[in-house]
Amino acid sequence: MEPLYPTHARERNMNPNIVRISPDKAWRLFNLGGVVVSAEHEGVADAMAAAWNMPVELDPCIMTVVIDKSHFTRPLIERSGCFVLQLATVQIVRETLRLGSVSKNDNARKLEESGASFFRLPGCPAPLLEGCAGWALFERIPEPHNEQPYDLFTGRLIDAWADSRCFTNGRWHFDAPQAQGLRTLHYVSGGQFYALGESINVEA
Amino acid sequence: MEPLYPTHARERNMNPNIVRISPDKAWRLFNLGGVVVSAEHEGVADAMAAAWNMPVELDPCIMTVVIDKSHFTRPLIERSGCFVLQLATVQIVRETLRLGSVSKNDNARKLEESGASFFRLPGCPAPLLEGCAGWALFERIPEPHNEQPYDLFTGRLIDAWADSRCFTNGRWHFDAPQAQGLRTLHYVSGGQFYALGESINVEA
Repeated sequence: MEPLYPTHARERNMNPNIVRISPDKAWRLFNLGGVVVSAEHEGVADAMAAAWNMPVELDPCIMTVVIDKSHFTRPLIERSGCFVLQLATVQIVRETLRLGSVSKNDNARKLEESGASFFRLPGCPAPLLEGCAGWALFERIPEPHNEQPYDLFTGRLIDAWADSRCFTNGRWHFDAPQAQGLRTLHYVSGGQFYALGESINVEA
Repeated sequence: MEPLYPTHARERNMNPNIVRISPDKAWRLFNLGGVVVSAEHEGVADAMAAAWNMPVELDPCIMTVVIDKSHFTRPLIERSGCFVLQLATVQIVRETLRLGSVSKNDNARKLEESGASFFRLPGCPAPLLEGCAGWALFERIPEPHNEQPYDLFTGRLIDAWADSRCFTNGRWHFDAPQAQGLRTLHYVSGGQFYALGESINVEA
């Protein structure tokens, strides 16, 4: 587990539990629920909910995510060449729904009016959504044969972080008392989500 | 909701709750956890767990799933041109782990020794795993530029079914008393899973 960013956190009143994740463990951040995608280009940022995301490679971690052509975030990714995927949680379920239901094409103040808070980390050129369980920065791998027909974007991991209250030593601990509110979310439709539930351990 | 297969179910002692899902709602079966992939070619069948799967299109429903080159199931899909994705559940967590940890390349009696039971449905050329929450048959869309570098397979929905104790009127009802044991699963590693948890409804 990499060191915290304590100075940075104190300066900005940031969540002090954020730790850097070793790149070879970053794939474990995903496959547990919907993400919020954020990106920024020339000072213009956006963030949108994306239910459909999955890893395709472990190390280097390569992620895929479906981003429709109608989204304001999409050209920000294409122009900046990178994007952040962050794991939305129960404690920000309302903000997540708003980030997924309002387009910045319709409301330039979408982020400000969403109720969501964002923060910055050194070396990350896009805003990060507060209240998530994990965050990861990806460099876009251009794949026009997937982006055009399937709206499928592909990214190679640059850096990853998690909230140490729910992710330590490369493992999730959602059942820990301090992890309350940090369970990940699956979006169904019509404002309905399922939170991640109990841990089940099976002996092989 | 399409009619049951009651005669077929009675004949084979099959789960009588299986209903057909309208193809335009089939995408809702997915994005909630790991799947088991099954396929059959010339009388040889296999089934394997696949944690990484997601939809890329709603209607027609197009799914993607990562299937490593080492898996016995992969050439069965390539040769038969189709595969079944089925949503593993808490009640078959041990069988799911075994289907994911033993290869038919190493043990020809993998399916028989897994503890898993399989059944057949009319029009489905691959075996279906009992105890799942939903099942869907896909026709492979050959995408060599994804299958080779990313082991990413793509399929167009042919037909889908669900267990009506947890899926009715195009919606999941995992909190219903009769749905006990049917919650979907997320695999982490080392025999650890997370079950899907509570439903959260947010007003937009």
